This record gives sequence, C-alpha cells and structure tokens, in this order.
Amino acid sequence: MKVVITGGAGFLGRMLTESLLKRGRLVDRQGSLSDIDELVLFDQDAVEQHPDPRVHVVTASICDPESVAGVVTDQIDGVFHLAAVVSGEAEADFDKGMAVNLGGTLNLLEACRRLPYAPRLVFTSSVAAFGGELPSPVLDNTATTPRSSYGVQKVIGELLLNEYSRKNFIDGRGLRLPTICVRPGTPNKAASGFASGIIREPIDGITALCPVTPETLMWLMSPPTAVANLVYAHELPPAAFGNQRCLSLEGLTVSVGDMVAALRTTCGDEAAARVEWRRDPAVEAVVSTWPGRFESARARELGFYTDRDFETIIRTYLKTKPT
Amino acid sequence: MKVVITGGAGFLGRMLTESLLKRGRLVDRQGSLSDIDELVLFDQDAVEQHPDPRVHVVTASICDPESVAGVVTDQIDGVFHLAAVVSGEAEADFDKGMAVNLGGTLNLLEACRRLPYAPRLVFTSSVAAFGGELPSPVLDNTATTPRSSYGVQKVIGELLLNEYSRKNFIDGRGLRLPTICVRPGTPNKAASGFASGIIREPIDGITALCPVTPETLMWLMSPPTAVANLVYAHELPPAAFGNQRCLSLEGLTVSVGDMVAALRTTCGDEAAARVEWRRDPAVEAVVSTWPGRFESARARELGFYTDRDFETIIRTYLKTKPT
Repeated sequence: MKVVITGGAGFLGRMLTESLLKRGRLVDRQGSLSDIDELVLFDQDAVEQHPDPRVHVVTASICDPESVAGVVTDQIDGVFHLAAVVSGEAEADFDKGMAVNLGGTLNLLEACRRLPYAPRLVFTSSVAAFGGELPSPVLDNTATTPRSSYGVQKVIGELLLNEYSRKNFIDGRGLRLPTICVRPGTPNKAASGFASGIIREPIDGITALCPVTPETLMWLMSPPTAVANLVYAHELPPAAFGNQRCLSLEGLTVSVGDMVAALRTTCGDEAAARVEWRRDPAVEAVVSTWPGRFESARARELGFYTDRDFETIIRTYLKTKPT
Repeated sequence: MKVVITGGAGFLGRMLTESLLKRGRLVDRQGSLSDIDELVLFDQDAVEQHPDPRVHVVTASICDPESVAGVVTDQIDGVFHLAAVVSGEAEADFDKGMAVNLGGTLNLLEACRRLPYAPRLVFTSSVAAFGGELPSPVLDNTATTPRSSYGVQKVIGELLLNEYSRKNFIDGRGLRLPTICVRPGTPNKAASGFASGIIREPIDGITALCPVTPETLMWLMSPPTAVANLVYAHELPPAAFGNQRCLSLEGLTVSVGDMVAALRTTCGDEAAARVEWRRDPAVEAVVSTWPGRFESARARELGFYTDRDFETIIRTYLKTKPT
C-alpha cells in the first residue's frame, strides 16, 4: 500500500514517517493490514532523500492543485494531512493562512474525491477550534468557536472533512490536537511555541522568555503520543467515527507555572531559573482564547492514547532529544 | 448611500428591493441614517431594469471575482448577500454548491475586505446549519452540525463572516433563516420547497404533493417577516452582534399536518384536500435532519421580528399573493 504525508518535512511529519517505517504496515483501502510499499512525503520545503527506499520525497506546494493531484493517485490508500501554516503566522499573514490551511485542504480533498474509492484521510485540527467564553471542561459536543484565523481555518477543515466523508468522497478522521510539547528543534511561528521553548531552551542552557502568566492553563500532548494517535486514527474502522468525523484528543491540562515546576523537578533549579517571565500581548491575545480543560469522552471510549503527566513528558523528551 | 443585494433577482431579493425602496433610508458606513441613492441588484439571472431610477441591475456570476469587485466599490455602504444555490440543488450538484455558496461568498468577502472601511454585510444562513441528533429546542450556543452540502456551505459562511468581522474587514451580521413560507411563484430546488407548495398550489386550485409525513416539524417564517429581519440586521449597531455574528431567528414551529389544518381553516376543505401525501426519500433525507424547535433568545433580546401564527401567515399571503 501507498501512503502520503502532507507537511511530511515538518516536525510531526518526520516523526510520523519514522513511526510508519518502523511499524511497516497499515490498514489499506480494503480494510486489511498491508505492507507499506511507498511513503510519499509531500512538502513545500525541500528535504534530503530519505535513506529508506520506501520513502519518496515530493517538493511542491499544497496550494498547487496539480501537484497535489500528482501525488494523490489511485495507488494511494491513506493520507495524513499535516501541512499547515501555524497559528501565529496565520494570524499575521491572513492570505497565506487562507491559501494553505483552507485552499490547500480543499485541493487535497478534491484530489482524494477524484479517486475511484474513498481513501482514509487523517486530518489534524487544533485546540484553536475553541475560543472565547466556553464551558469548562470543553465537551465533545461543545460548539466550536474559533477566535483566530488558524482556528477558523481548522474548523472549516473539520466541516469539509465531515462533508466529504458524508458524500463518501473520503473516509475522513480528524483529531483536535492539543499543543504539542516538548517540540524539538528551533522555535516556529505557532503562538503556542513558547510551551516547548520554556522547556527545551532551559534544558539546553539557554534563557527562554515566557510570554504568558504562570496561571495560564495549557492543554498538552507529547510528540510520541500525538504520532501514535495519528496512526491509531488511520487504523480505526470507519464506523468508529460515524457522522462526526472530528474529535478532541485527551490532552494533559497543566498550568504554565506547573510546567516550570516540572522542569525544576526533572532538570533542577538552574534550568527552571532560565525561564524569564515577560508577557507578550500578541501571544496572550491568541493563547488566552484557547480552553485549558477538556473532557474528551469520545477519544477515551475509542481508545486514543494519553500522556501520564508532564514530568514524564519531559523525561521522555530528555531520552530522545536531538543532541 | 449605496447598497448591493446579491441574488437581487431572486424572490427574497426582489421583496427586499421593494422594502428598501419604500423605506428609502438605511444606516450608512458612518452609522447615520442616510438616503439610499443607489441599489445594485447583482444576480446571474438577467432581469428587466427596474422602473425606479435608484435601482441598477448587474447581471453577472458571484463566482467571478472581478464582477463582484466591480460592484463592491468604495461607494458601497451595505451589502445583503442572498445569492445561493438552494439546498436540493447543492445536494445534487456538489460542485455548483461549493462554487456559489462557498466560492461566491469568499469572493464577496474579499471584495469587501479591499474597501478602505468595513462595510455592513448581512449574510443569510439557514436552519440547515443543524442536523442529526440535536437538543430540542436548539439553543443559541448549540453546536452547528450540518448534514447537507448546503448546510455545510452555510456554516462555513458563518465562520468566515465571524472571522472577517473579527479582522475588521467587514461588519458582518448573519441570520439563520427558518424555512420561508409561503414563498410565491414557481417551485424551486430547495428541499423545503414543498412547505410553500402545499399551501400555494392548493390555493391556486392545483394538487400539491407533500413528500414528508404530517408529523414532520417545520421551522417557518413568512417572507415579509424575513425581509423585515434582514433590514433590521443591517440597522443594528455592531455591538449588538459582538464576537458571534450569526444568530438563529425566532421561527414558528409547526407540524406539516398543522400547516394543512391551517390551510383548511383559512381556505376551506376543498383546498386542504388538494394536498396529496406521497413520501419522497430524497426530500425526507434532507428535511428530516433539520430541527423543528428553536429557543432563539438572542434574536428575541435583540428585537428581531416574529410571525404570530401560521394562519396569519396564510392570510397575509392571500392578501399579497401575485394574481
């Protein structure tokens, strides 16, 4: 079987790639466990060819319908759609966010629709689907009320995923991902980027600015758990999703103050002291609209994975972090 | 001041045109009551020039960005966006529904965004924003769960209306309209078209097929009340809408059986006997997903108009119906 990952050169895309290569098999279009013969990494950013012969890198923009149709051929059994402009950038550059997050998703859906069968499509939505005055916890049937361009684009993606699935153009599965933490590598333009920065940078001996107050509640998931859930979403039978193709995962609710306390416990006072509190209204304006508490009954009932606690997340990061 | 009505040649568009011409004034971009100097009717269907010199007819498709930008110039103070592919047609022709209801709305929003101020934009959403398992009544904060292509496209329009308003590109006001009844004229391709047909046709001495059961609950509003609400939505100050730019109006909840009973009371046994019950699975599949009961507290608090009862709706129709 053949699988496509859009945004395959990104941080989650690369982790997902390694996970799929190691796993070696996925459920194919007939619903049978099959060997992955080819894994297409579709990304606008050029990356080196992967040493594994199953991997095929395609450098192109998801905003170009022909490039998308060129990889979503009738060889494809499954698609993981990770390509996106992140929250901070989508807020600053409205046109870019609309073009990639809405237009790109439509290009992908249309390419899938043209196949003679309904491929499995795993879509990543976000905590940013919610904003403003909300019940606490946010429930599975709480109305999505995005208050950011990124959130609006993700919720439109959720609606289209439902609709294309209802029309049997695709077999869609959407996950509202918590803020992913600890994200390795360099900072990106996500408004939530600080959540990883205040752990990653101090561990590396670098001072990190925290743009929000210690009381701010974050809804978090570690990268390995997020990747395991993407794969699991692909593997579940269609009936598990029914009419509502998108669900909120079970993230950890942790205050930013408790995140730094966990850094202190796991990495010592010196590391924790490298977090410098300096409020940034632009970041606060986006992050403060996101809810911190969820009661994700559907994800639990369907068996999606959770993290134990934030200290464990840090310890796992320490074991696997790039050196 | 200058006003544009998209879908201006349609049934609601023509009623709105007459209402605005008679009224003569609307709140302009500065928030002051101003004379309407020009009323542009933008529609893909060619219509005769209007005898009133204030009316200017433009025949073009909302799917063409340049045509839309050509009428949404910086002379414009307000826009009523009524152009849409109706529910039955959007379900049967997915591409057309997406092009007009999503693509056309985006063209209009982008044209408004290019103005050096945020014009008032009245958007018509629908009962079709809701579907599937729902609380009864549907509340203002009930999650939108469309189960039709039309409904999905309308909910995406709601999200974009909110987002473009949040970005201060427009001053958007969205109304979820109940099924409009009694709609004069010939049947259209709306899945709810029968609701008008089973009243209008029997009054004209013609047999009408009713494709749903008498127990089916409809959520209804008369054309004059709907038009009054469109104008009222334009006139309210921006603060009345706040972060959530779309609301459900207060429709009448009436079973189809009670609609026919009201026809009997107002027009006699002979008229009522012209309703022939013949279930149509295609219509039922769409209509059965729509909720029949709403508790629209926001619309009531903001002072939107309601109909008294269904018999009054029929009597009003009888007084004004085209001969």
